[in-house]
Amino acid sequence: METQTGILTVVSGFSGSGKGTLMKRLLEKYPDNYALSISATTRDPRPGEVDGREYFFRTAEEFKQMIAEDELLEYACYVNNYYGTPKAYVQEQLRCGKDVILEIEMQGALKIKEKYPDTVLMFVTPPSFEELERRLVGRGTETAEVVRERLCRAGEECAGVEAYDYLIINDELETCVEQVHSILLNEHTRILRNETFINKMKTELAKYAKGEQS
Amino acid sequence: METQTGILTVVSGFSGSGKGTLMKRLLEKYPDNYALSISATTRDPRPGEVDGREYFFRTAEEFKQMIAEDELLEYACYVNNYYGTPKAYVQEQLRCGKDVILEIEMQGALKIKEKYPDTVLMFVTPPSFEELERRLVGRGTETAEVVRERLCRAGEECAGVEAYDYLIINDELETCVEQVHSILLNEHTRILRNETFINKMKTELAKYAKGEQS
Repeated sequence: METQTGILTVVSGFSGSGKGTLMKRLLEKYPDNYALSISATTRDPRPGEVDGREYFFRTAEEFKQMIAEDELLEYACYVNNYYGTPKAYVQEQLRCGKDVILEIEMQGALKIKEKYPDTVLMFVTPPSFEELERRLVGRGTETAEVVRERLCRAGEECAGVEAYDYLIINDELETCVEQVHSILLNEHTRILRNETFINKMKTELAKYAKGEQS
Repeated sequence: METQTGILTVVSGFSGSGKGTLMKRLLEKYPDNYALSISATTRDPRPGEVDGREYFFRTAEEFKQMIAEDELLEYACYVNNYYGTPKAYVQEQLRCGKDVILEIEMQGALKIKEKYPDTVLMFVTPPSFEELERRLVGRGTETAEVVRERLCRAGEECAGVEAYDYLIINDELETCVEQVHSILLNEHTRILRNETFINKMKTELAKYAKGEQS
Protein backbone atom coordinates (compact mmCIF):
# COMPACT_ATOMS: atom_id res chain seq x y z
CA MET A 1 0.00 0.00 0.00
CA GLU A 2 2.57 2.54 -1.18
CA THR A 3 0.24 5.39 -2.04
CA GLN A 4 -1.88 5.08 1.09
CA THR A 5 -3.58 8.32 1.89
CA GLY A 6 -6.50 6.95 3.87
CA ILE A 7 -5.91 5.19 7.18
CA LEU A 8 -6.42 1.48 7.59
CA THR A 9 -8.44 1.04 10.78
CA VAL A 10 -9.40 -2.12 12.58
CA VAL A 11 -12.28 -2.15 15.01
CA SER A 12 -12.71 -5.08 17.36
CA GLY A 13 -14.57 -5.42 20.60
CA PHE A 14 -16.64 -7.54 22.85
CA SER A 15 -19.78 -9.07 21.49
CA GLY A 16 -22.31 -6.71 23.05
CA SER A 17 -20.04 -3.69 22.85
CA GLY A 18 -22.26 -2.18 20.18
CA LYS A 19 -19.43 -1.87 17.67
CA GLY A 20 -21.65 -2.82 14.73
CA THR A 21 -24.14 -0.04 15.42
CA LEU A 22 -21.27 2.35 16.10
CA MET A 23 -19.65 1.73 12.72
CA LYS A 24 -22.96 1.88 10.87
CA ARG A 25 -23.68 5.29 12.42
CA LEU A 26 -20.14 6.56 11.71
CA LEU A 27 -20.52 5.71 8.03
CA GLU A 28 -24.01 7.20 7.84
CA LYS A 29 -22.76 10.44 9.37
CA TYR A 30 -19.49 10.75 7.47
CA PRO A 31 -19.85 8.87 4.19
CA ASP A 32 -17.09 10.94 2.54
CA ASN A 33 -14.54 10.05 5.22
CA TYR A 34 -15.00 6.34 5.66
CA ALA A 35 -15.51 3.07 3.86
CA LEU A 36 -16.36 -0.22 5.51
CA SER A 37 -14.49 -3.26 4.31
CA ILE A 38 -16.63 -6.27 3.46
CA SER A 39 -15.27 -9.67 4.44
CA ALA A 40 -15.36 -12.80 2.34
CA THR A 41 -16.57 -16.01 3.96
CA THR A 42 -17.30 -19.61 3.15
CA ARG A 43 -20.13 -19.87 5.68
CA ASP A 44 -23.72 -19.99 4.43
CA PRO A 45 -25.70 -16.75 4.26
CA ARG A 46 -28.19 -16.30 7.09
CA PRO A 47 -31.75 -15.19 6.30
CA GLY A 48 -31.70 -11.58 5.12
CA GLU A 49 -27.97 -11.48 4.37
CA VAL A 50 -27.06 -10.31 0.89
CA ASP A 51 -23.89 -11.23 -1.04
CA GLY A 52 -21.67 -8.14 -1.29
CA ARG A 53 -23.43 -6.35 1.56
CA GLU A 54 -22.92 -8.35 4.77
CA TYR A 55 -20.28 -10.61 3.23
CA PHE A 56 -18.95 -11.86 -0.03
CA PHE A 57 -20.18 -15.44 0.10
CA ARG A 58 -17.67 -17.78 -1.53
CA THR A 59 -17.20 -21.53 -1.86
CA ALA A 60 -14.24 -23.09 -0.11
CA GLU A 61 -12.62 -23.58 -3.51
CA GLU A 62 -13.04 -19.93 -4.47
CA PHE A 63 -11.71 -18.88 -1.09
CA LYS A 64 -8.61 -21.04 -1.43
CA GLN A 65 -8.06 -19.52 -4.85
CA MET A 66 -8.12 -16.03 -3.26
CA ILE A 67 -5.54 -17.16 -0.69
CA ALA A 68 -3.34 -18.65 -3.42
CA GLU A 69 -3.43 -15.45 -5.44
CA ASP A 70 -2.64 -13.26 -2.40
CA GLU A 71 -5.93 -11.42 -2.71
CA LEU A 72 -6.57 -11.24 1.05
CA LEU A 73 -5.15 -8.84 3.63
CA GLU A 74 -5.69 -11.52 6.27
CA TYR A 75 -7.81 -14.61 6.70
CA ALA A 76 -8.64 -17.09 9.41
CA CYS A 77 -10.68 -20.20 9.98
CA TYR A 78 -13.44 -20.30 12.65
CA VAL A 79 -15.72 -23.26 13.23
CA ASN A 80 -14.75 -24.85 9.88
CA ASN A 81 -15.43 -21.70 7.86
CA TYR A 82 -12.98 -19.28 6.32
CA TYR A 83 -13.25 -15.53 6.86
CA GLY A 84 -10.98 -13.01 5.16
CA THR A 85 -10.51 -9.40 4.02
CA PRO A 86 -10.29 -8.87 0.24
CA LYS A 87 -7.34 -6.60 -0.51
CA ALA A 88 -8.48 -4.87 -3.71
CA TYR A 89 -11.44 -2.94 -2.27
CA VAL A 90 -9.44 -1.78 0.76
CA GLN A 91 -6.55 -0.51 -1.34
CA GLU A 92 -8.84 1.25 -3.78
CA GLN A 93 -10.65 3.11 -0.99
CA LEU A 94 -7.40 4.06 0.77
CA ARG A 95 -6.07 5.42 -2.52
CA CYS A 96 -9.20 7.61 -2.76
CA GLY A 97 -8.27 9.06 0.63
CA LYS A 98 -10.94 7.24 2.60
CA ASP A 99 -10.18 5.68 5.96
CA VAL A 100 -11.14 2.04 5.60
CA ILE A 101 -12.64 0.33 8.60
CA LEU A 102 -12.29 -3.40 9.11
CA GLU A 103 -14.57 -4.88 11.73
CA ILE A 104 -12.65 -8.05 12.52
CA GLU A 105 -11.64 -10.24 15.44
CA MET A 106 -8.49 -9.81 17.44
CA GLN A 107 -6.63 -12.63 15.71
CA GLY A 108 -7.02 -10.96 12.30
CA ALA A 109 -6.41 -7.50 13.77
CA LEU A 110 -3.01 -8.49 15.08
CA LYS A 111 -2.04 -10.04 11.74
CA ILE A 112 -2.96 -6.82 9.95
CA LYS A 113 -0.98 -4.69 12.43
CA GLU A 114 2.05 -6.89 11.92
CA LYS A 115 1.85 -6.59 8.14
CA TYR A 116 0.86 -2.90 8.10
CA PRO A 117 2.20 -1.25 11.27
CA ASP A 118 0.49 2.08 10.48
CA THR A 119 -2.91 0.47 11.01
CA VAL A 120 -4.96 2.03 13.80
CA LEU A 121 -6.47 -0.57 16.12
CA MET A 122 -9.50 0.30 18.22
CA PHE A 123 -11.13 -1.88 20.84
CA VAL A 124 -14.75 -1.17 21.72
CA THR A 125 -16.09 -2.01 25.16
CA PRO A 126 -19.19 -1.22 27.21
CA PRO A 127 -18.44 1.03 30.20
CA SER A 128 -18.35 -1.87 32.69
CA PHE A 129 -18.60 -5.63 33.14
CA GLU A 130 -22.12 -5.23 34.52
CA GLU A 131 -23.17 -3.31 31.44
CA LEU A 132 -21.59 -5.92 29.15
CA GLU A 133 -23.59 -8.65 30.89
CA ARG A 134 -26.77 -6.57 30.79
CA ARG A 135 -26.42 -5.92 27.06
CA LEU A 136 -25.83 -9.57 26.23
CA VAL A 137 -28.84 -10.66 28.24
CA GLY A 138 -30.88 -7.66 27.12
CA ARG A 139 -30.72 -8.59 23.47
CA GLY A 140 -33.15 -11.33 24.33
CA THR A 141 -32.29 -13.14 21.14
CA GLU A 142 -29.67 -15.35 22.77
CA THR A 143 -30.09 -18.26 25.12
CA ALA A 144 -28.49 -18.15 28.56
CA GLU A 145 -25.97 -20.63 27.21
CA VAL A 146 -24.88 -18.27 24.41
CA VAL A 147 -24.62 -15.36 26.86
CA ARG A 148 -22.36 -17.44 29.08
CA GLU A 149 -20.24 -18.52 26.14
CA ARG A 150 -19.79 -14.94 24.99
CA LEU A 151 -18.84 -13.71 28.44
CA CYS A 152 -16.26 -16.49 28.72
CA ARG A 153 -15.03 -15.67 25.23
CA ALA A 154 -14.80 -11.98 26.17
CA GLY A 155 -12.38 -12.98 28.89
CA GLU A 156 -10.13 -14.61 26.32
CA GLU A 157 -10.39 -11.66 23.95
CA CYS A 158 -9.21 -9.28 26.65
CA ALA A 159 -5.85 -11.03 26.64
CA GLY A 160 -4.61 -9.34 23.48
CA VAL A 161 -6.08 -5.88 24.01
CA GLU A 162 -2.72 -4.33 24.96
CA ALA A 163 -1.67 -4.51 21.31
CA TYR A 164 -4.46 -2.12 20.36
CA ASP A 165 -4.07 1.64 20.07
CA TYR A 166 -7.31 3.06 21.43
CA LEU A 167 -9.91 1.96 23.96
CA ILE A 168 -13.37 3.10 22.90
CA ILE A 169 -15.78 3.06 25.81
CA ASN A 170 -19.21 2.89 24.21
CA ASP A 171 -21.61 4.47 26.67
CA GLU A 172 -23.72 6.84 24.57
CA LEU A 173 -23.81 6.14 20.80
CA GLU A 174 -23.54 9.67 19.35
CA THR A 175 -20.76 10.69 21.74
CA CYS A 176 -18.90 7.54 20.85
CA VAL A 177 -19.31 8.11 17.09
CA GLU A 178 -17.85 11.60 17.49
CA GLN A 179 -14.95 10.22 19.50
CA VAL A 180 -14.02 7.65 16.86
CA HIS A 181 -14.31 10.33 14.17
CA SER A 182 -12.14 12.71 16.15
CA ILE A 183 -9.48 10.04 16.78
CA LEU A 184 -9.23 9.28 13.07
CA LEU A 185 -9.08 12.95 12.09
CA ASN A 186 -6.24 13.40 14.54
CA GLU A 187 -4.45 10.30 13.29
CA HIS A 188 -4.09 12.15 9.98
CA THR A 189 -1.93 14.75 11.74
CA ARG A 190 0.64 12.14 12.81
CA ILE A 191 4.18 12.89 11.69
CA LEU A 192 4.43 9.58 9.84
CA ARG A 193 1.39 10.45 7.73
CA ASN A 194 2.76 13.84 6.74
CA GLU A 195 5.98 12.88 5.03
CA THR A 196 5.11 14.84 1.90
CA PHE A 197 4.64 18.10 3.80
CA ILE A 198 7.77 17.56 5.88
CA ASN A 199 9.95 16.67 2.91
CA LYS A 200 8.74 19.72 1.00
CA MET A 201 9.54 21.98 3.96
CA LYS A 202 12.95 20.35 4.35
CA THR A 203 13.78 20.78 0.66
CA GLU A 204 12.88 24.46 0.68
CA LEU A 205 14.80 25.14 3.88
CA ALA A 206 17.84 23.33 2.46
CA LYS A 207 17.59 25.32 -0.76
CA TYR A 208 17.45 28.53 1.28
CA ALA A 209 20.43 27.60 3.44
CA LYS A 210 22.44 26.72 0.33
CA GLY A 211 21.55 30.03 -1.29
CA GLU A 212 22.68 31.83 1.83
CA GLN A 213 26.06 30.13 1.82
CA SER A 214 26.89 30.96 -1.80
CA MET B 1 6.10 9.22 37.42
CA GLU B 2 4.27 6.12 38.67
CA THR B 3 0.92 7.69 39.40
CA GLN B 4 0.77 9.68 36.18
CA THR B 5 -2.76 10.52 35.25
CA GLY B 6 -2.09 13.62 33.17
CA ILE B 7 -0.13 13.40 29.94
CA LEU B 8 3.35 14.81 29.60
CA THR B 9 3.37 16.80 26.36
CA VAL B 10 6.25 18.47 24.60
CA VAL B 11 5.64 21.21 22.08
CA SER B 12 8.45 22.31 19.80
CA GLY B 13 8.41 24.12 16.50
CA PHE B 14 10.03 26.60 14.23
CA SER B 15 10.66 30.05 15.51
CA GLY B 16 7.79 31.86 13.81
CA SER B 17 5.43 28.91 14.05
CA GLY B 18 3.34 30.75 16.60
CA LYS B 19 3.69 28.00 19.20
CA GLY B 20 3.96 30.47 22.08
CA THR B 21 0.64 32.15 21.24
CA LEU B 22 -0.93 28.76 20.59
CA MET B 23 -0.02 27.42 24.04
CA LYS B 24 -1.06 30.64 25.77
CA ARG B 25 -4.49 30.44 24.13
CA LEU B 26 -4.85 26.73 24.92
CA LEU B 27 -4.25 27.39 28.62
CA GLU B 28 -6.55 30.39 28.64
CA LYS B 29 -9.35 28.34 27.08
CA TYR B 30 -8.89 25.14 29.07
CA PRO B 31 -7.26 26.06 32.39
CA ASP B 32 -8.62 22.91 34.07
CA ASN B 33 -7.04 20.58 31.52
CA TYR B 34 -3.55 21.95 31.13
CA ALA B 35 -0.57 23.30 33.00
CA LEU B 36 2.45 24.90 31.41
CA SER B 37 5.82 23.88 32.74
CA ILE B 38 8.18 26.72 33.59
CA SER B 39 11.85 26.24 32.74
CA ALA B 40 14.78 27.15 34.91
CA THR B 41 17.65 29.09 33.32
CA THR B 42 20.93 30.72 34.20
CA ARG B 43 20.54 33.46 31.58
CA ASP B 44 19.73 36.99 32.71
CA PRO B 45 16.08 38.10 32.75
CA ARG B 46 15.11 40.33 29.82
CA PRO B 47 13.13 43.52 30.48
CA GLY B 48 9.61 42.59 31.57
CA GLU B 49 10.42 38.97 32.44
CA VAL B 50 9.41 37.87 35.92
CA ASP B 51 11.03 35.10 37.96
CA GLY B 52 8.59 32.18 38.21
CA ARG B 53 6.50 33.38 35.27
CA GLU B 54 8.67 33.29 32.12
CA TYR B 55 11.48 31.35 33.81
CA PHE B 56 12.90 30.45 37.15
CA PHE B 57 16.08 32.53 37.05
CA ARG B 58 18.90 30.75 38.82
CA THR B 59 22.63 31.23 39.25
CA ALA B 60 24.96 28.70 37.62
CA GLU B 61 25.73 27.35 41.07
CA GLU B 62 22.06 26.88 41.95
CA PHE B 63 21.48 25.22 38.59
CA LYS B 64 24.35 22.77 39.08
CA GLN B 65 22.89 21.96 42.48
CA MET B 66 19.56 21.10 40.80
CA ILE B 67 21.38 18.82 38.37
CA ALA B 68 23.28 17.12 41.19
CA GLU B 69 20.08 16.48 43.13
CA ASP B 70 18.26 15.10 40.06
CA GLU B 71 15.65 17.82 40.23
CA LEU B 72 15.42 18.29 36.46
CA LEU B 73 13.54 16.25 33.86
CA GLU B 74 16.07 17.38 31.26
CA TYR B 75 18.55 20.19 30.82
CA ALA B 76 20.83 21.55 28.15
CA CYS B 77 23.35 24.28 27.59
CA TYR B 78 22.83 26.92 24.85
CA VAL B 79 25.17 29.85 24.26
CA ASN B 80 26.82 29.38 27.66
CA ASN B 81 23.57 29.30 29.58
CA TYR B 82 21.77 26.38 31.16
CA TYR B 83 18.10 25.68 30.52
CA GLY B 84 16.17 22.90 32.24
CA THR B 85 12.76 21.57 33.30
CA PRO B 86 12.18 21.32 37.06
CA LYS B 87 10.70 17.92 37.86
CA ALA B 88 8.64 18.67 40.98
CA TYR B 89 6.08 21.01 39.40
CA VAL B 90 5.54 18.71 36.41
CA GLN B 91 4.97 15.65 38.57
CA GLU B 92 2.62 17.49 40.89
CA GLN B 93 0.45 18.70 38.01
CA LEU B 94 0.39 15.27 36.33
CA ARG B 95 -0.69 13.74 39.62
CA CYS B 96 -3.59 16.23 39.71
CA GLY B 97 -4.67 14.90 36.31
CA LYS B 98 -3.50 17.88 34.30
CA ASP B 99 -1.70 17.45 31.01
CA VAL B 100 1.57 19.29 31.42
CA ILE B 101 2.96 21.10 28.42
CA LEU B 102 6.67 21.68 28.01
CA GLU B 103 7.62 24.18 25.36
CA ILE B 104 11.18 23.09 24.70
CA GLU B 105 13.64 22.59 21.88
CA MET B 106 14.08 19.38 19.96
CA GLN B 107 17.23 18.34 21.82
CA GLY B 108 15.39 18.39 25.16
CA ALA B 109 12.25 16.89 23.64
CA LEU B 110 14.08 13.81 22.47
CA LYS B 111 15.75 13.35 25.86
CA ILE B 112 12.33 13.48 27.54
CA LYS B 113 10.82 10.98 25.09
CA GLU B 114 13.71 8.59 25.74
CA LYS B 115 13.25 8.82 29.50
CA TYR B 116 9.43 8.85 29.44
CA PRO B 117 8.26 7.06 26.27
CA ASP B 118 4.59 7.91 26.94
CA THR B 119 5.31 11.58 26.32
CA VAL B 120 3.39 13.11 23.43
CA LEU B 121 5.61 15.17 21.12
CA MET B 122 4.07 17.84 18.91
CA PHE B 123 5.86 19.88 16.29
CA VAL B 124 4.29 23.19 15.28
CA THR B 125 4.87 24.62 11.82
CA PRO B 126 3.39 27.35 9.64
CA PRO B 127 1.48 25.99 6.64
CA SER B 128 4.39 26.57 4.20
CA PHE B 129 7.98 27.75 3.84
CA GLU B 130 6.77 31.03 2.33
CA GLU B 131 4.54 31.63 5.36
CA LEU B 132 7.40 30.82 7.74
CA GLU B 133 9.58 33.38 5.98
CA ARG B 134 6.77 35.94 5.96
CA ARG B 135 6.12 35.53 9.68
CA LEU B 136 9.77 35.90 10.60
CA VAL B 137 10.14 39.04 8.50
CA GLY B 138 6.70 40.30 9.49
CA ARG B 139 7.52 40.48 13.17
CA GLY B 140 9.62 43.49 12.29
CA THR B 141 11.47 43.15 15.56
CA GLU B 142 14.31 41.15 14.07
CA THR B 143 17.11 42.22 11.78
CA ALA B 144 17.50 40.54 8.38
CA GLU B 145 20.50 38.77 9.86
CA VAL B 146 18.40 37.20 12.64
CA VAL B 147 15.70 36.15 10.14
CA ARG B 148 18.36 34.43 8.03
CA GLU B 149 19.85 32.71 11.06
CA ARG B 150 16.46 31.44 12.15
CA LEU B 151 15.60 30.10 8.72
CA CYS B 152 18.94 28.30 8.57
CA ARG B 153 18.36 27.00 12.08
CA ALA B 154 14.87 25.82 11.08
CA GLY B 155 16.53 23.67 8.45
CA GLU B 156 18.60 21.96 11.12
CA GLU B 157 15.59 21.52 13.42
CA CYS B 158 13.67 19.73 10.70
CA ALA B 159 16.23 16.92 10.86
CA GLY B 160 14.80 15.40 14.03
CA VAL B 161 11.10 15.94 13.39
CA GLU B 162 10.45 12.27 12.50
CA ALA B 163 10.79 11.39 16.18
CA TYR B 164 7.74 13.52 16.98
CA ASP B 165 4.19 12.19 17.20
CA TYR B 166 2.05 14.95 15.69
CA LEU B 167 2.53 17.67 13.12
CA ILE B 168 0.54 20.76 14.04
CA ILE B 169 0.06 23.04 11.05
CA ASN B 170 -0.69 26.44 12.55
CA ASP B 171 -2.73 28.29 9.99
CA GLU B 172 -5.60 29.79 11.97
CA LEU B 173 -5.08 30.16 15.74
CA GLU B 174 -8.47 29.05 17.11
CA THR B 175 -8.69 26.04 14.78
CA CYS B 176 -5.21 25.05 15.80
CA VAL B 177 -5.98 25.39 19.53
CA GLU B 178 -8.97 23.09 19.10
CA GLN B 179 -6.85 20.60 17.22
CA VAL B 180 -4.21 20.39 19.95
CA HIS B 181 -6.97 20.08 22.56
CA SER B 182 -8.66 17.32 20.58
CA ILE B 183 -5.39 15.41 20.11
CA LEU B 184 -4.71 15.45 23.84
CA LEU B 185 -8.27 14.42 24.74
CA ASN B 186 -7.91 11.48 22.37
CA GLU B 187 -4.52 10.56 23.75
CA HIS B 188 -6.32 9.83 27.02
CA THR B 189 -8.24 7.03 25.27
CA ARG B 190 -5.04 5.19 24.33
CA ILE B 191 -4.91 1.61 25.55
CA LEU B 192 -1.70 2.24 27.49
CA ARG B 193 -3.38 5.02 29.49
CA ASN B 194 -6.36 2.85 30.43
CA GLU B 195 -4.66 0.01 32.25
CA THR B 196 -6.87 0.44 35.30
CA PHE B 197 -10.09 0.03 33.32
CA ILE B 198 -8.71 -2.93 31.35
CA ASN B 199 -7.39 -4.73 34.41
CA LYS B 200 -10.70 -4.27 36.21
CA MET B 201 -12.61 -5.70 33.22
CA LYS B 202 -10.17 -8.60 32.97
CA THR B 203 -10.50 -9.41 36.66
CA GLU B 204 -14.29 -9.47 36.52
CA LEU B 205 -14.36 -11.59 33.37
CA ALA B 206 -11.89 -14.04 34.91
CA LYS B 207 -13.98 -14.20 38.08
CA TYR B 208 -17.06 -14.94 35.95
CA ALA B 209 -15.34 -17.65 33.90
CA LYS B 210 -14.08 -19.30 37.08
CA GLY B 211 -17.57 -19.24 38.57
CA GLU B 212 -18.93 -20.86 35.43
CA GLN B 213 -16.44 -23.70 35.58
CA SER B 214 -17.14 -24.64 39.17
